[in-house]
This record gives sequence, structure tokens and C-alpha cells, in this order.
Amino acid sequence: MRLTVRLVDIAARGILLHQNDAKSLGVLPGDRVVVSSPGSGKATADYVETTATLIGQGLIGVYHHTSNQLDLKEGETVEVRFSDRPVSLDYIKKKMNGEKLSRDDIRTIVTDIVHDTLSPSEITAFVVSSYINQLDMDEIEALTRSMVETGDQITFHTGPIVDKHSIGGVPGNKITLVVVPVIAATGLLIPKTSSRAITGAGGTADLMEVLAPVEFSATQVQEMTLKTGAVIVWGGATNIAPADDKIIIQEYPFKIDQIGQMIASVMAKKFAVGANVVAIDIPVGKHCKVQTIEEGRKLARQFIDLGERLNMRVECALTYGDAPVGRTIGPKLEIKEALSVLEGNESPRSFLQKSCVIAGIALELAGKANRGNGADLAMEIIKSGKALKKFKEIIAIQGGNADITSDQINPGEHSYIVRADSDGYVVDLNNHSLITIARTAGAPADHGAGLYLHAKQGVSLSKGDPIFTLYADRKWRLDKAIEVARRLHPVMVEGMLIDRVPNVMVWNPGRSPTSE
Amino acid sequence: MRLTVRLVDIAARGILLHQNDAKSLGVLPGDRVVVSSPGSGKATADYVETTATLIGQGLIGVYHHTSNQLDLKEGETVEVRFSDRPVSLDYIKKKMNGEKLSRDDIRTIVTDIVHDTLSPSEITAFVVSSYINQLDMDEIEALTRSMVETGDQITFHTGPIVDKHSIGGVPGNKITLVVVPVIAATGLLIPKTSSRAITGAGGTADLMEVLAPVEFSATQVQEMTLKTGAVIVWGGATNIAPADDKIIIQEYPFKIDQIGQMIASVMAKKFAVGANVVAIDIPVGKHCKVQTIEEGRKLARQFIDLGERLNMRVECALTYGDAPVGRTIGPKLEIKEALSVLEGNESPRSFLQKSCVIAGIALELAGKANRGNGADLAMEIIKSGKALKKFKEIIAIQGGNADITSDQINPGEHSYIVRADSDGYVVDLNNHSLITIARTAGAPADHGAGLYLHAKQGVSLSKGDPIFTLYADRKWRLDKAIEVARRLHPVMVEGMLIDRVPNVMVWNPGRSPTSE
Repeated sequence: MRLTVRLVDIAARGILLHQNDAKSLGVLPGDRVVVSSPGSGKATADYVETTATLIGQGLIGVYHHTSNQLDLKEGETVEVRFSDRPVSLDYIKKKMNGEKLSRDDIRTIVTDIVHDTLSPSEITAFVVSSYINQLDMDEIEALTRSMVETGDQITFHTGPIVDKHSIGGVPGNKITLVVVPVIAATGLLIPKTSSRAITGAGGTADLMEVLAPVEFSATQVQEMTLKTGAVIVWGGATNIAPADDKIIIQEYPFKIDQIGQMIASVMAKKFAVGANVVAIDIPVGKHCKVQTIEEGRKLARQFIDLGERLNMRVECALTYGDAPVGRTIGPKLEIKEALSVLEGNESPRSFLQKSCVIAGIALELAGKANRGNGADLAMEIIKSGKALKKFKEIIAIQGGNADITSDQINPGEHSYIVRADSDGYVVDLNNHSLITIARTAGAPADHGAGLYLHAKQGVSLSKGDPIFTLYADRKWRLDKAIEVARRLHPVMVEGMLIDRVPNVMVWNPGRSPTSE
Repeated sequence: MRLTVRLVDIAARGILLHQNDAKSLGVLPGDRVVVSSPGSGKATADYVETTATLIGQGLIGVYHHTSNQLDLKEGETVEVRFSDRPVSLDYIKKKMNGEKLSRDDIRTIVTDIVHDTLSPSEITAFVVSSYINQLDMDEIEALTRSMVETGDQITFHTGPIVDKHSIGGVPGNKITLVVVPVIAATGLLIPKTSSRAITGAGGTADLMEVLAPVEFSATQVQEMTLKTGAVIVWGGATNIAPADDKIIIQEYPFKIDQIGQMIASVMAKKFAVGANVVAIDIPVGKHCKVQTIEEGRKLARQFIDLGERLNMRVECALTYGDAPVGRTIGPKLEIKEALSVLEGNESPRSFLQKSCVIAGIALELAGKANRGNGADLAMEIIKSGKALKKFKEIIAIQGGNADITSDQINPGEHSYIVRADSDGYVVDLNNHSLITIARTAGAPADHGAGLYLHAKQGVSLSKGDPIFTLYADRKWRLDKAIEVARRLHPVMVEGMLIDRVPNVMVWNPGRSPTSE
């Protein structure tokens, strides 16, 4: 069928047909047609949406993606014909039916995801099927390799290439900013790609962006790493494992954490940058993705198993996840805290310790320290100022200002101190609530937004003592965050007396309060 | 956040934000925002898509659906703020996790489907979860009731209201055109809503449309039924069980036949038109949805069980489904055949018999015939001409030409006879292939397209005898259908000799062919 092009300036995939034309072609919404342009000689398959009202018969609504692919012009005539449905739909159905997918099945699905051959709904079907009928380790390996092969890859021809990863969920987990320069200071290469926050108050890429640009191609990542030993960039700007983002976006509405998918996602990004030594931080806690030590051990074994299949040495650390790491949450506040630690200030202990533990594991795996001495070596490197020096080199090569010091970084101009309304001890910090409050204040988009914890678990407070300070770049954001903080009560302060059971009898003056 | 409206003339749901605005609002693709128009004072929640290129910062791309709801004008300013995600997403997640959904959970999901609160991907997640973690009868009942309650309903205040349904998959299954007038001829009411073909060569609504309009509202269906006792309309034009279409479209790419969903879909449409007596035709055969008698019995029991919960008397017939019903496939051909049977012509027997069996079940359930006598009564009604008279009343009230006779209906002007290329018997008819050929010829959109079977199973043919005739309204469609027919070989003609096992020894002239 010949139809006249009408360009529709929209990000969606698919093409739009009048329902009568669709009927005449014998296609239904979701079917594929091949659109070919006699002008450019190019053709592409795309899925059909239909309308009774938005375009007339004889026209074809062509979205941005397709018009770009075919170099289409408004009013041009294209040829449209029925096309077979992608075979990847059969493989997704296979997973729905509880069957195991072969390496080729998975490669086909991932390729069709990357090329936008599958619609968002169809990717959702894959995600949901893999969530319910869990992927086994063969499938996870195939998914990892397919995600790597369908994107850009980096190859280094020198010694061990190091990487690290923290499973999300803990606020203030800025350790990458310390771990990466420590490792690179020993001469090891660590081309670190990080994420932006999805549901958190700031991913490592959001933090690093306070100091320097973070968007680079895979080739640039390689070149910079060869020069300084390390980078800290946003993975989303590279074309590394591009299938992953398209899968994650379909998981998002349901907050699906499909373990197999998550392991493949993490490891594909390490594998694609050429890493062969990987330290993985698995926070365990009641508000974390991993809630028990047993779950954490199981997940660790899966990472290690997959690492072996991919020729990577992986070690995992189960870490305390029931409180924020350090005292700060939010881009500028966290960067300030990280720089301060690199500048040699010991406090806060939790942040410094955790950074040294994770860096230490990588140093041991890479042969820079004996087993059990890695954390000490990391601490030495920090104390000596070598890590700070390396961090400044990283800032410089990414195009930032390497002369910056922690006291030059100031959080948002609007602030508010939340105080204890009674004497007591900090008995609980709710990570979820702290993140929600930081996000309400504007983090991570507003770099100055976030919060500073004056008191952490176990600390005793008197009525009126500051618990945390809220910061925001915009006044109305601060007001909203205060409101949310009042409602969520993220820090529980209680006296030693947990509860008081009153006497049920009513005191009656003039009578004895004992029962008769 | 205040943004300027840019109308995007597209059928999709959702709104489009520049990614920086989305970041600043703290929303991700798939999150919900509330858009409110100070102009019209109206507000609606919608899901977010983001773009880096298609619209600039400060603008909001508003699709057709949303701009209609809010009466938006190009260039006007709207207020956009973050909105909570719909709780129905949690219920869908619950089903993913294998938990049972409550009646309220399901009602919430169905309501959000009808109101377009859930995105197509999110509906897919519901469909896939219910497919893998099957719905039980309580959930099926809740789904049925929810689909009814979220659409238009018809209430009759008189005696039994009859309905019938055939599970799809068998080509040429035009029996509704005979069953409905037979039932209505006894004075019973049967407000029949039918479907259009999705993957078939013609649904009942496609067939009926050859004779009369089929698009009416629920109120019109009720009024017409009260006048003539019956209608045969397209259910899609009413607002009866509107959730169903939105669910089915998400099942389509994967050819999912979720049993619970299918039962709910069928029964919701019966319940919504007030039916309390229902005959269900379950074709069983190797190319059908139901492939064994056991499966058929199980499905029948589910229909009957759900019927009891809804206060409907349901009976099912397992019918022979390995060959087309009657001799014709395609709208005009089938209408011609149906009219011919109503005019008193006995042939084809399979079609007449099946119609009487299904009509008979309904007549018995409704008390018009004793158990076992329904089919005979149906036959009498046809022979007497009462069914034809009633069918013409139905055509008339729907606005068609009631004077039409079967010999005035002619199939497509382009035709081609496929002949036996050897002597033999018809040993197999492949329903799938026959449907594909009829669709390639243009059915159901081209009313004249389809095929006429000269020979059915068991018939003996001589080389050169006609097997079937192909019809098409357009020459190029005919040519394509001939090509497909040659490839698919939908009718197998074989001699009594099924296979011949050759002697493995090579015949060598001059030597004895016996082994030495």
C-alpha cells in the first residue's frame, strides 16, 4: 500500500495508520509493517498503531525515530507492507511458559530491544516473565554477554583492570569518590562508569557532576583512563550495555528488582569496560534491597559464579546498610564530605572505614596488598594525600576545576534545623524517609539540596539538640521538605523508657486508689 | 512547575516533558504528574515520557486524550506537579508475586485500565502476570464483575434473556446468523453483541455488516431488542465491558490465550446485556484453541461454575472443530450461505446441524423445549420460514435492506479454482491455512473475498476436480492468495495408499532382483 508521509514530531516508536488502511492491509495494532522509501531507498520494520481520527486515510504518521532512519520528508510517498512478527516474541512467550531460554534466544531478544524492534509493552512482558520465572545462571550469563555484545566495549592491553559496584538503596553512599582514586593511586586502572539516581537522592554520576563533566563516549573513557588511571563518569552517556537502560525503564513502574536481571546489568557494565577484578558492596539492612545476611550471601555467590564464567575475579562485601553512609545526603553535601575525607579529615568514621574496606578488597584481588592488608593500605594512601592528588587528576582530565577544596563547596542557601523534641537516644534512622525528604528538597537535580545528619544511631540528645539540617536551593522546596520531614519522622529519638503502662483505675480524690 | 502547552496530535496517552524539566520536578518516565489548567479549572493525572530533543525546556507536549480532557489550547500555561503512582501497580506486582487478588484489587486495576490510568506496558504486566500465575475462579468472577461495572449495562424487566457464544478458531463459523433468529422466533429476547475478526477471516459483526449497520449504543441495542426480540451488532461500538478490548490488544503480540481472562471476557459481555441463559459452543480440534475433549470439558465446567456465581444458566457444547463450518469462508460468501440455509436449503449439513444444536440448547435452557428436543424445534422453526422472517426483521431494524435474498449476494469478481492434482480423498483441511488464504485474499475488510470449499473431508476426487474456489475484490489480492494457497496446501488430497516403501535394492537389468 502506498501512503503519504505525515511527520509526527514525537519520541515514541511505531507508525500510525488510519484504521481503514490498517484493515485493508490486514494489520492490527502491534503488528509489524515494513515501511520503505522510494526516495532514499531505505526500509525499516516498525509496529503499527491505528487511529480513526488523528490522520486521514491514505496518510501514514511517522514518528521521529522512523523518519530519521529513512530520511523521510513531509508529503513524500512510502510503500507499506505487512511484515512478520519478530521471532523474539516467541522466545518471550517461551519464558512466560516457564521454559529455559537458550543463549541464541536471549541474544535475539536483547538485539531486538537495542534496535527498538520490540515495543515497550513487549519489553515489559520479557521483564515480567523473567521476574516470575526466574532466570537461571546460564540465562544470566547469556543476558550479560548479549548486553555487552550489543553495545560499545573497551579493551585494555595492560594488567588488571579494576571496578567496583555498590548495590543501591543506602543514602549517602559516596564511597566511589574515595575508592576510585585510592585504587588508581597504586597504578591500577579503574574506568568507573556510574549511574545517576533513579529513585535515590544522588547517584555517583550526580555527585561527580558537581565537580566536572561526566558525559563521555566509551573511547574517551578509555583514553582518559590510560592517561590518569581512572575516571568517574556517567555510564548512560556511553553506549555501554544500552539494552540495560531500556529494560530498567520497564521495571521502574513496578519497582521490580529481578535478581538475575540486576546481576547481569551490573556485570555487563564491568565486563564491557574490560574489568577483570571487581569488588562488590552489598549493603544489608531492613530498608535495603538485601534485608538479611543469608540473602546477601546468596547474592554474593551468584556474582562470584557469574564472574568465574566471565573470567573475572569478583569478591563481595556485605556491609551495614541500616543507616546512611557518613553524615550527608545530596550532591554538594556528599561531594564536600568526600573531599574532606580525601583531605585527611577522619570524621565521619563510617564513611572512611567503608571506603577503605571496599578499596582494600580490590587492592588484594589485584595483588597490590596481601590478604587482610588491603584496607590498611587504602587508609595509608588516603593519609599520604596520594588519593586526593589522584582525585584532582581525575577532576582535571574530565574538565573540572582541580583546585577546589571541601570548604569551597556550600550546600543550598535555604536551610532548616530539625531538633529533638524530647531528651533521648537516636534509636532508628529510616533510609527511605531520608531519601524522600532529600528528594523533596530538590536532590539530585538541585545540587545544593539534601540533608546533614548531626546525630546518628545510639547518640544521646537533649531536647532542642539538632538532629539534622535540611538544605535546598529553592525556598518552596525547603518548605515542602520540612512538611514531609514532619510527617515522616525519619529519625526516631526515644528515652530509655520505651513505653509506660498506666494503672487502669481512675484516681478518685478522697478515696484510696487500691481496689476494694 | 508551570509549563507552556504544545499540542501533539497523536493518539498515545501520556505527556511529554523535556528531561531537564522532568529532573527538576523529580519525575522519571513512567511516573505520574497532575496537569491542571487554570483556564478550564480541570486537572488530570497522566504518565510522563521525556525527551531531550523534541520539545524545549518550559514546554509540555500534550497528547490528544489529555488536551481533550482539559480543553487545552496551544500556548496556554498549565501547572504540573508530581503525583503518586496508582495503587493498582502494587496489585499487579502482587499478582506477579503469585498472591491472590481480592475483589477490590481487581476492581481497582480494571477501573484504572478503563480510565487509561495504566499505560499499555502496565496493562501488559497485568496480562502476563495473570497468564503465568493463573487467575482462580474467585479472581475470574471479580474480573468479570469489574468489567461489567466499568461499562454500560442493559437491564430487561421480562423473562429469560438468551445469549450464545462460540470460542473462536474455526473458519466459516457463521452459526450466530441462524441461531439468533431461531431463538427470537420463539418470542425469547437475544440482544447479541458480536466481535469483528481479530486474526480470523470474519467475525459475526463483519458478516452482519454486509447486510446492515452494526454499530449501536447499549441503549439502542436494548430498544431494538425490545421491538424485534433480537439484534446482531458489533460489541465494540457499545461501551459494554470496555476494559476487555484494552486487555486483548496487549495479549495480541504474544498470542496469549489466558483462560481466566477469556472466560471473564465472554461472560462479562453476556452479563452486561442482562443474559441469564447462555449456550456456549466450544469447538475442539487440532487447529482450535481447545485441542482435546478433556480440555474442552474442563473449560465447560469453568464457564458453568462462573455462570452459577453470576446467576446465569450456562450450558456448553463441545463441537467438531477440525474443519470449517459449512462450505464458505469470508463475509459475503458466509452471509450468502447463512441466508440460503434460512431460506430452507438443507445443504451444507454441518452448518445447519450445528446451528440447530446450539439454538436447541438455548431453547431447552429457556424452557421452550424439553430436554433433548431443542434441536428438532430449531429445525422446525427454520423449515417453517419463521427464522428467515425474524432475520429480516433484524436486518430491517438495524437499517439494512430486508428484501435481500441469498442469490443476490455475490462474492468478489476475481476468482480462481484450485483443483486436485491427483486422484484421491480429502484427508485433511487445515483451518489455519484456510484462514490465512482468505485473509490474504482480503477478508474481512474486502467483503467479497474468501473461499468456497467444493470438497470436504472424506470426499473422493479425481485429478482436475475443483477443491475450492478463491474469491477476491481486487486482482492483486487474488494473485497473492493463489501464491499463498500453493505454498500452504490447505486441503490434503491423497490416494488410499498412504505411503509406498520402495525395495532398497537397485534394479539391475539382466540380473535377478532377488537378493543373493
